[in-house]
Amino acid sequence: MSMRVGVLGIGKTPHKIQHEKSLKDLGVEAGRKAMADAGVDPSEIQMLYVGNVGSVGFNYENSTALMAAHHLGVVPAGAVRVEAACGTGAWALHLGCVAIASGLYDTVMVLGMEKMNDLATVEGTSIIAQAADSKEEYFSGLTFPSGTALTARKYMQAYGVSEEDLAHTSVKNHFYGARNPSAHLRFECTVEEVMNSPKVADPLKLYEVCPMTDAASALVLCREEILRAQPNRPQVYVTATSMASGTWYQASDTLDDAYNLFHRPATRAYEMAGVTAKDIDVAEIYNSFAIQEPLGIEGLGFAKMGQGWKGAKDGSTWLDGKIAVNPSGGLLCKGHPLGATGATQAVDIVEQLRGTAPEGMQRADAEIGISACRGGPGSVGAIHIYQRLEG
Amino acid sequence: MSMRVGVLGIGKTPHKIQHEKSLKDLGVEAGRKAMADAGVDPSEIQMLYVGNVGSVGFNYENSTALMAAHHLGVVPAGAVRVEAACGTGAWALHLGCVAIASGLYDTVMVLGMEKMNDLATVEGTSIIAQAADSKEEYFSGLTFPSGTALTARKYMQAYGVSEEDLAHTSVKNHFYGARNPSAHLRFECTVEEVMNSPKVADPLKLYEVCPMTDAASALVLCREEILRAQPNRPQVYVTATSMASGTWYQASDTLDDAYNLFHRPATRAYEMAGVTAKDIDVAEIYNSFAIQEPLGIEGLGFAKMGQGWKGAKDGSTWLDGKIAVNPSGGLLCKGHPLGATGATQAVDIVEQLRGTAPEGMQRADAEIGISACRGGPGSVGAIHIYQRLEG
Repeated sequence: MSMRVGVLGIGKTPHKIQHEKSLKDLGVEAGRKAMADAGVDPSEIQMLYVGNVGSVGFNYENSTALMAAHHLGVVPAGAVRVEAACGTGAWALHLGCVAIASGLYDTVMVLGMEKMNDLATVEGTSIIAQAADSKEEYFSGLTFPSGTALTARKYMQAYGVSEEDLAHTSVKNHFYGARNPSAHLRFECTVEEVMNSPKVADPLKLYEVCPMTDAASALVLCREEILRAQPNRPQVYVTATSMASGTWYQASDTLDDAYNLFHRPATRAYEMAGVTAKDIDVAEIYNSFAIQEPLGIEGLGFAKMGQGWKGAKDGSTWLDGKIAVNPSGGLLCKGHPLGATGATQAVDIVEQLRGTAPEGMQRADAEIGISACRGGPGSVGAIHIYQRLEG
Repeated sequence: MSMRVGVLGIGKTPHKIQHEKSLKDLGVEAGRKAMADAGVDPSEIQMLYVGNVGSVGFNYENSTALMAAHHLGVVPAGAVRVEAACGTGAWALHLGCVAIASGLYDTVMVLGMEKMNDLATVEGTSIIAQAADSKEEYFSGLTFPSGTALTARKYMQAYGVSEEDLAHTSVKNHFYGARNPSAHLRFECTVEEVMNSPKVADPLKLYEVCPMTDAASALVLCREEILRAQPNRPQVYVTATSMASGTWYQASDTLDDAYNLFHRPATRAYEMAGVTAKDIDVAEIYNSFAIQEPLGIEGLGFAKMGQGWKGAKDGSTWLDGKIAVNPSGGLLCKGHPLGATGATQAVDIVEQLRGTAPEGMQRADAEIGISACRGGPGSVGAIHIYQRLEG
C-alpha cells in the first residue's frame, strides 16, 4: 500500500540545556514555528500527537499533550501523548501519518518534546532507566549505558572490530555537529580524543554517548492534495512509515535482534515507498550511543552485518559519500531529548529534501531520505521514508 | 466518512484491588482473553495500542507497551503507549480504529491497563493530580475532587438542582454495580445512604466518587471483511470514533465547556455512524464523579442542559428506560483504573450488543451503543459508537 503524506510545515527549538524555558515553552515554540512554516492557523489542526517520555519524572507533569493543545491554541483538536521509550517521537510521526492516510483528517500536528535538565543527571538517568524493565534489569544494575556496552562488546568480538575502528563514528558525527546551529555539542574531535574521553561503561566512552538535552520539534502533516495545491511550497512527502517491536531484555539481546529491529520494518518501508536502500541519499539514524549507528546502517541495508562502522572511516557515510548518514551530527551532537528525537530526525531530513539544511550539512540534490529511530532495550524500530516529489 | 471496524474479540480482568498481580499480569490476562475470544494467535496482531496513564508513579515503570508486547508474545508488532489523562483507554481504542480504517493493518489490539494500588491512596491521588496542571492548579490545592466539586456547585446553582436530586445517579449505578461480577463495589445504596456517606469535597460525597482500582481490558479489532467472513461470530462493529480536546484549567471551566467536551465530538460521531441520539439503546458514560454522568447525558444529546440528572430519578436512564445509561454500574462501581477505563467501557458495550452482558445488566435487544470517556480538567472528550450489523 502506497502512502503520500504531505509535510506542510516543520519547526524545532535549539537542542541544548534550557533552564530558562519550561517543557510547555519548548513545545509551544516548536509547534508555532511549524504552523508558521506551514501557513496554517491553530484552528486548522485537527489532531495533535505529542511524543513525550519522561515528564512525570522530569517535570512533575503527566498529560502534556492536553497542556500543549491548550497553549498552542489547537483546542478542540484531539490531543494525545504517545510514549514508546526512545522511539517516542517517531511513533508520534507514525500516528500522524496513519491519521492522514485513514482519510479521517486533513491536517494534523506531530510534536515531540522533552525537558531533561530540570533535574540532576543522576536523577535523569534513573528516569530513563524506567524505559526498560526496571524491576528485572535496572534494579540489577543493567542500565542503558551498561546494556549498550554489552552490545558494543558483542559487536567487536563477532566482527573483529577495535575501539579505534568504532571511534570514527563519533569523529564523523562531531564534524557535522560542529556545523549544526541547532546542536547541543558543537565541537570537532579526533579519534585520539574519542579514545581518551572518560569511560562511561567500558568500552563506551564519553564522546560515544549523547548528552541530556532540552528540545522540541514539530511537523504539520496534511493530505497530499493540500500540499499539491500549493506548488510554491517544497513538495516533500512521507512515503513510508513502518514500526516494529523487538526484545524487552537487554541481557539476552543478540546482534541478530539488533539487526532485525531495523531490518524488518525497513523492508516493509522500502516496499511501501517503492524504493531500495541504494536509492536513499540521506539518513538520520538513531545513535544515542555511537555503536547504534553501524548497527542501524546494517539493519537498513546500507552495509553488510559487521561492516556498518567502515563508512565513517572510509568516507562513504560522510556528506558526499555513497550515503550521507547523520549529517546533522546525530544524537551524539544534537543530544537525545527523548520524545523529541524522532521528530527532530524527521525535521532534519525534510530540511535536506527542501535543500535548506545549514551550510556544511546539506547533501547535494537530496531527493530521498530516511529516518530510523529505536527505543527501549531493543524494543522499538521505527522507519520513515521521505521523498521530494514535484507534481 | 463512514467506518466499519470489526470487534473480533474482547477480554477484561476483574476490576478490584489486586495486590497479588502486577501491571504486567493484568495486561497479559486481558490481552490473552481478547485473543482467545477473537480466535487469533499473537502472531496475527500487527499493532498494539496500550492505554496506561500512571505507571511511572504507580509502578516505577514507563514503557509499558513494550513490556506488554513482549509478555503477550505479539512481537514484532508495533507497540506504543498512549496517554490522555482519564481519556487514555478511549484514545487507545481510537488509534486502533484509525489504524484499521487506514487500510494499513488487518488486525490490531487495544489494551487498557492500570495498577493503582501498589501505593497508598494519598500517593495515588498525587499521581492522578499530574493529569492536570500540577504547577498552576494542583500545587494550589485544586485537585480533581475539589475541581469537580466546583463543577457540581455550578450545576446545582445554574439549574436549581439539589444534592438529593444528584444522589439518584449513585443509587442507579450501585443498583447495577451490585449485579456486575466484574465490578469493584458491589452493593446497592439508597439516596439517604449516598447523602450520609462521608464528604470528599463538598458537595461530593464518598458514594459519588469512584474507588482506586486495578484492572485491564482489551479488544482485538479487524477489518470489516475479516469479521464478515466469520458469520457465526457476533457481528459488532465500531461505526464511529471521534475525539476532542477542551479546557486545561479547572478553575475557569464552565458548564458550557463541560457540555461542549462531549457535544462536539458526539455530533461528529453521530454523523459518521449515520445515527442520532434517539437511536442509541445503551450508553457507558464516564462518571469517576457522579456529577459527570448528567453532564455527559446532556452533552451526548440524551437530555437538555440541566435535565440530565432526572433520568436516574424517573427511571428513563435505567435498564428498561428510554436509554440504558451505565448498566455496568459505571466508574462509580467498576472503579476507574485510569488507562483501562475507556477500554472497559468499550468491552461492556460490545457485551451488550452481543447479548452477553451479565444477568440484570443486559439491555433487551441492544443494537446500537455508545461510550463516552473524558479526561483531564475537561480536556478530553472521546466518543465511540458500536453497532450490531448482521451481514
